[in-house]
Amino acid sequence: MSERKIHKTQVAIMGAGPAGLMLSHLLFRAGIENTVVEIRSRDSISRTIRAGILEAGSVDLLVDSGVDNVLRNGHEHEGTEFRVNGEGHRIDFKGLTGNSVWLYPQNDVFDDLAAQREADGGDVRYSCSGTQVSDLTGTPKVFFTDADGQDWELRAEILVGADGSRSLCRGAVPAAERTWHFNEYPFAWFGILAEAPRSAPELIYANSAHGFALISQRTDAVQRMYFQCDPATNLAGWTDEQIWEQLRVRVNGNGFELKEGPVIDKVVLPFRSFVHTPMRHGNLFLAGDAAHTVPPTGAKGLNLALHDVKLLFESLDSYFSTGSSALLDTYSDRALDRVWKAQYFSYWMTTLLHTVPTEPNHDFFRARQIGELRSLLESEHGRAYIAECYTGWQGK
Amino acid sequence: MSERKIHKTQVAIMGAGPAGLMLSHLLFRAGIENTVVEIRSRDSISRTIRAGILEAGSVDLLVDSGVDNVLRNGHEHEGTEFRVNGEGHRIDFKGLTGNSVWLYPQNDVFDDLAAQREADGGDVRYSCSGTQVSDLTGTPKVFFTDADGQDWELRAEILVGADGSRSLCRGAVPAAERTWHFNEYPFAWFGILAEAPRSAPELIYANSAHGFALISQRTDAVQRMYFQCDPATNLAGWTDEQIWEQLRVRVNGNGFELKEGPVIDKVVLPFRSFVHTPMRHGNLFLAGDAAHTVPPTGAKGLNLALHDVKLLFESLDSYFSTGSSALLDTYSDRALDRVWKAQYFSYWMTTLLHTVPTEPNHDFFRARQIGELRSLLESEHGRAYIAECYTGWQGK
Repeated sequence: MSERKIHKTQVAIMGAGPAGLMLSHLLFRAGIENTVVEIRSRDSISRTIRAGILEAGSVDLLVDSGVDNVLRNGHEHEGTEFRVNGEGHRIDFKGLTGNSVWLYPQNDVFDDLAAQREADGGDVRYSCSGTQVSDLTGTPKVFFTDADGQDWELRAEILVGADGSRSLCRGAVPAAERTWHFNEYPFAWFGILAEAPRSAPELIYANSAHGFALISQRTDAVQRMYFQCDPATNLAGWTDEQIWEQLRVRVNGNGFELKEGPVIDKVVLPFRSFVHTPMRHGNLFLAGDAAHTVPPTGAKGLNLALHDVKLLFESLDSYFSTGSSALLDTYSDRALDRVWKAQYFSYWMTTLLHTVPTEPNHDFFRARQIGELRSLLESEHGRAYIAECYTGWQGK
Repeated sequence: MSERKIHKTQVAIMGAGPAGLMLSHLLFRAGIENTVVEIRSRDSISRTIRAGILEAGSVDLLVDSGVDNVLRNGHEHEGTEFRVNGEGHRIDFKGLTGNSVWLYPQNDVFDDLAAQREADGGDVRYSCSGTQVSDLTGTPKVFFTDADGQDWELRAEILVGADGSRSLCRGAVPAAERTWHFNEYPFAWFGILAEAPRSAPELIYANSAHGFALISQRTDAVQRMYFQCDPATNLAGWTDEQIWEQLRVRVNGNGFELKEGPVIDKVVLPFRSFVHTPMRHGNLFLAGDAAHTVPPTGAKGLNLALHDVKLLFESLDSYFSTGSSALLDTYSDRALDRVWKAQYFSYWMTTLLHTVPTEPNHDFFRARQIGELRSLLESEHGRAYIAECYTGWQGK
């Protein structure tokens, strides 16, 4: 057992996901010292397959800070398709709102930021163990053992919890000092990666009597698709043919057919809405999944995390350059403004597009849902409103 | 007991509410014989206080058929106010969509139509008793005893059930031939009439942590207001002061104060969503509340009934003038298109504006609701979409 070493920094960041690394990178560019502590290995994070849609504001945050692979390797999507009982309706984001989104997988965002932090000599400690945090309302401390077995005590003026949905930092906030808001859903997503060509140029959100499906892309040769399933689904019991059959009945129709191929990855994604308020406790500030989880419908998770980071960076930059805590003091309220809009939008898209056969008044809910989809999709105002929310409330 | 008399007509209409009388009036103008049978007295219907907002399409239907008191005695409303936690946000219907609505109480619509039917010598039998219907799939018959005690057998080619939410006609459809869709709500409306001047030029839909309220008008000197209450509320237990206190905490704020006065009428209005499908059985056609009930939030009930009548009149006119049943055969599907949009909109406005303290995840739902209201009201697209639905999907 080695002797514990002490390291002092301005900002300690728990978590080296996209949120933690983005903040570390922005702080570095502003000359603010920071250290990132992460329990997973860099390779393990890089291999975690997550969301794939970036709002224009998220792309701007990356590109404006010099991390611009997204412009070369991402794909701008100027719209999306809603398919209702096999009938397609395009929502023209660009035409309706002037904004678009970018298809660029979350692990590529991570790889870009990790490479940039490495190139800039950033202090990012992967594969740490035994992490603990303390003194959140004074001078926060992080205790950990690094990948080489060295014990550390990290002392910081500010601690940022960007440590994801199982956040250690969040758990260190006394129960009397926070409120947890949550909602659960009676379904999950069955997600696959398939070796197949692209079925459509844009994403397809499908509502059918059989349930929801989402047709997305990963690369030219690998596609990402999801369909609504029981949360207790056992992946092992599913053959490729059974999976494709579920997707076909939800999506195909009116001359459209999914392009199929071997399924190379399967996962069940649980659905949950969660918000921890406030997003500050003393000198601890929470960002991203550490403070909130959205169901994946609507693609808000990563975008919301990057928006938190943008606000938190501006607040920290103001604090360290002027000594004023005015922006830090309002960080939680300002971040939550958007968090609750995104929670609403994610909940709305979820209830709009999924079926709930166990709902006692299922006949009413299903017909009402089709009425809602028709009212929205037949209306230019309705489509423009969805487009505005989906592309991230630009300028709001 | 007098001998039963037989009367033959082209269309028998059960119910002399606005839907039944409107249809009777339109059929008369097209030269189609019809008889209306109603169990209530004309005076009792006239005194029933109901909805007060007409979509432009409803006004057009009345005015184009020569019933135009609404233009003299109604008030055009070019917008409405949503108040969220005491902060007002106007939705400019006219500016956003080019359309407006009219404040004109349902009992005035009834009085106008009843007077017109009387002036035209229409065959409207009020205060009937012992009503029965039979032979719905053949030559429909209506049996009833009129106000003078005379027994009648009415034989018609077509029977229209416009006999309201407790429809006798609907009940005569075999259970195997129809589906009932319904939803119930954990709250009701406490409605009052108050002798007070107008508090605002337009309607106010208020959302607050205390629950929903709606501030509406009846005349210059009498106002109609509602607030969300427990469905088991006992009216007798409520003083004027207690009523005003409930309204104040939900509506007042930021310099706005309700104008108060003596409460001259109190009622508890239950909430229910209901649809009977299809809206046809043999030669029976259902219209209005006989086929569907919406919760009152969104003011769709009367407008939906008049829209059914418009479609049904066109279908009957085509049938009697050409002998083709093509339009009659699609009446149910065409009417249900709008019914389900209106069911959705009424459900949406209800869930958007009411609080449900018994909801297990109340903290989440309340914050999400505020997020939804902010997302909508800050967005021109969001406001325009609400305006389009509220004013009745004109041109759709």
